[in-house]
Amino acid sequence: MESVRSHLNEYVTTVGKSPIRALFELSFDPTLISFAGGNPASELFDVEGLTKSFTHIMETAGQRALQYASTDGEPEMRQAAALRTTQMGVPTTAAQVLITSGSQQGLGLLSQTLVNPGDVVLVENPSYVSALQAFGLQGAEFKPIDTDEGGVVPEALDAAIRQWKPKAVYMIPTFQNPTGVTMPESRRRAIADIIAAQDTWLIEDDPYSELRYTDEQQIPISADPRLDDRAFLLNTLSKVLSPGLRVGWIRGPEEILERISVAKQANALQTSTVDQLVAAHYLESNDLQAKLDPVRAEYARRRDAMLTGLREVLPPGSALTEPEGGMFVWARLPEGFDASALVYDAIKAGTMFVPGAPFYVADPDPRTLRFSFVSNTPEVTHEGLARLAPVFAGA
Amino acid sequence: MESVRSHLNEYVTTVGKSPIRALFELSFDPTLISFAGGNPASELFDVEGLTKSFTHIMETAGQRALQYASTDGEPEMRQAAALRTTQMGVPTTAAQVLITSGSQQGLGLLSQTLVNPGDVVLVENPSYVSALQAFGLQGAEFKPIDTDEGGVVPEALDAAIRQWKPKAVYMIPTFQNPTGVTMPESRRRAIADIIAAQDTWLIEDDPYSELRYTDEQQIPISADPRLDDRAFLLNTLSKVLSPGLRVGWIRGPEEILERISVAKQANALQTSTVDQLVAAHYLESNDLQAKLDPVRAEYARRRDAMLTGLREVLPPGSALTEPEGGMFVWARLPEGFDASALVYDAIKAGTMFVPGAPFYVADPDPRTLRFSFVSNTPEVTHEGLARLAPVFAGA
Repeated sequence: MESVRSHLNEYVTTVGKSPIRALFELSFDPTLISFAGGNPASELFDVEGLTKSFTHIMETAGQRALQYASTDGEPEMRQAAALRTTQMGVPTTAAQVLITSGSQQGLGLLSQTLVNPGDVVLVENPSYVSALQAFGLQGAEFKPIDTDEGGVVPEALDAAIRQWKPKAVYMIPTFQNPTGVTMPESRRRAIADIIAAQDTWLIEDDPYSELRYTDEQQIPISADPRLDDRAFLLNTLSKVLSPGLRVGWIRGPEEILERISVAKQANALQTSTVDQLVAAHYLESNDLQAKLDPVRAEYARRRDAMLTGLREVLPPGSALTEPEGGMFVWARLPEGFDASALVYDAIKAGTMFVPGAPFYVADPDPRTLRFSFVSNTPEVTHEGLARLAPVFAGA
Repeated sequence: MESVRSHLNEYVTTVGKSPIRALFELSFDPTLISFAGGNPASELFDVEGLTKSFTHIMETAGQRALQYASTDGEPEMRQAAALRTTQMGVPTTAAQVLITSGSQQGLGLLSQTLVNPGDVVLVENPSYVSALQAFGLQGAEFKPIDTDEGGVVPEALDAAIRQWKPKAVYMIPTFQNPTGVTMPESRRRAIADIIAAQDTWLIEDDPYSELRYTDEQQIPISADPRLDDRAFLLNTLSKVLSPGLRVGWIRGPEEILERISVAKQANALQTSTVDQLVAAHYLESNDLQAKLDPVRAEYARRRDAMLTGLREVLPPGSALTEPEGGMFVWARLPEGFDASALVYDAIKAGTMFVPGAPFYVADPDPRTLRFSFVSNTPEVTHEGLARLAPVFAGA
């Protein structure tokens, strides 16, 4: 385990390197039971269905699939993305969609297009680390928005916008990363009212909403037509189909998408032609919702195992979120604990979680930590938590 | 044709949109014979070989191919890239390689990592437009290096470095875009001496060197071990295997690659896992050099057809480069001609070239224009040039 530890030290001391990403890279160590990372479960990928689509595309459109393509995305994929977004409750045409090489590219492009050094970006506190990295690379100054168990507090958002005059507001309203929290419908409406009345961009990140373990479908804030000229909705196939394919999209105002396209051209020219055609073919020839049903059922089982297990091993006085979807449970240890200090002992014990501090832009709470529950079976989660128990008990 | 023209106007008037890229997008019009764009010939892609690799990877490593992977690139692909770079005359280990989603991403990442607003970047004049875009997005200030029929003039480079103290020098020494010019070996050695003695980064872009139509293999400037701590060599599979896959790499100093990796993480997380594994498998199980032999022979035939045809249709007093490889012929029309003004008439006549002016960072020569010769058969080139003849005659 010493080599793992020295690797970790090396990674986390590298200037600017995300410690979460560093933990993620460590998570390839096969002896470790990892609750870090944000990987969907490989064994639930529809390898057979995607293999069929690869074969079909290479056999029927091989030359096209291997050739250059447009920066904005292949027409079939833009159409498929528009249809999916519409089905999620946000009426969308292909012209309102720019294909990205995963949502992270969308975040990078939005940062480059909208944010200048010193611009304020309002974010949930804690928020998604790699989004903070993308905005931070452009010199954004972060201000936190107050949240509670229902996510962003509308009054706090309104006050923060008036106080900070932010260039953009970044949110993950559904099954948030890292907390797993979801904003109820009434809050979404209140937030739409606030954004509609102010002069700022809304960047709504929605990678998880189809990984829901109840029947309730959450409608994105961007569905409000008053926001059509100021909201960007980020979506991706990474969590519901495959992250290895790198196909996501931005839904937003067309004149800004044109500018984003210029940045994408200079950044990376285009998204993989073959990956786009394969994804579009798969979406057209499969019922993804039906395919997701057993995945959702299994993820719900894994979430339950995680919650049950955590209640047993976390020290008395700990608190847990109980997410209705997505991938993450967020925990807070009792007074006096420091999750960052425990992560090395956890690795020594053969398991791993992500300490919560790096997710904060202000007032980091050292007692917090994040557990991903989707990539391990209940049995493996049980074993991993058993390894963790003495770490918490001995702290 | 009117709709094509209105599209073109719309594109080229969009702020910051590369007119070459706009022409490229127009080149999907099937009625047009295009000498614009930089597409390799689709009909020469090894669709069968790549289909086998897709099938193999999906059948033997499907779950891994669809999952997240590391930012720096999959080990197999880094190894394959290192081997290819070594075979090109630049001894390279996998640790010296960062996989990129095509060379354009390499350019974007290098720009973001090395260039701050106001930094001077020295470039050949004319140079590759999308590289200028990538550096320009970061606020680079461009200064031209004098070139002649042998590429960059070493004395001029030395003087320019002393005068401008550039952050970086960007060059395409082999089959340059747009001119097709190649630096002879003696110049490369002289340039290596100059870079080794100065405090600047060398960014050497080498996408075309394996598309050579003579037996002479050009060794990159970066092969000089004195430059190991200051040279970045960009390479890609786009021109020799498939641009739709988006697999390229940067060979450079490891400590800077670490910083580039941080930027890549924030920009796009990673390159498509499946595309990397497929490319690595293809390179391991095929002799790409042997596969390229017939492609090179056909491209040489197409270049000859272009040169012969251009000599017939260009106005008397025109000049042409005679590239020994790559994709482009560069022409200069006689005194009084303006290639930009002719491009609309060319499109009306059902054909297209790229006017030279946008490739310049200083003193644009309006008489210049670029022809891509690889994507059309000799017969189609003949027909396209026949359509062009009256455009030049009537100008």
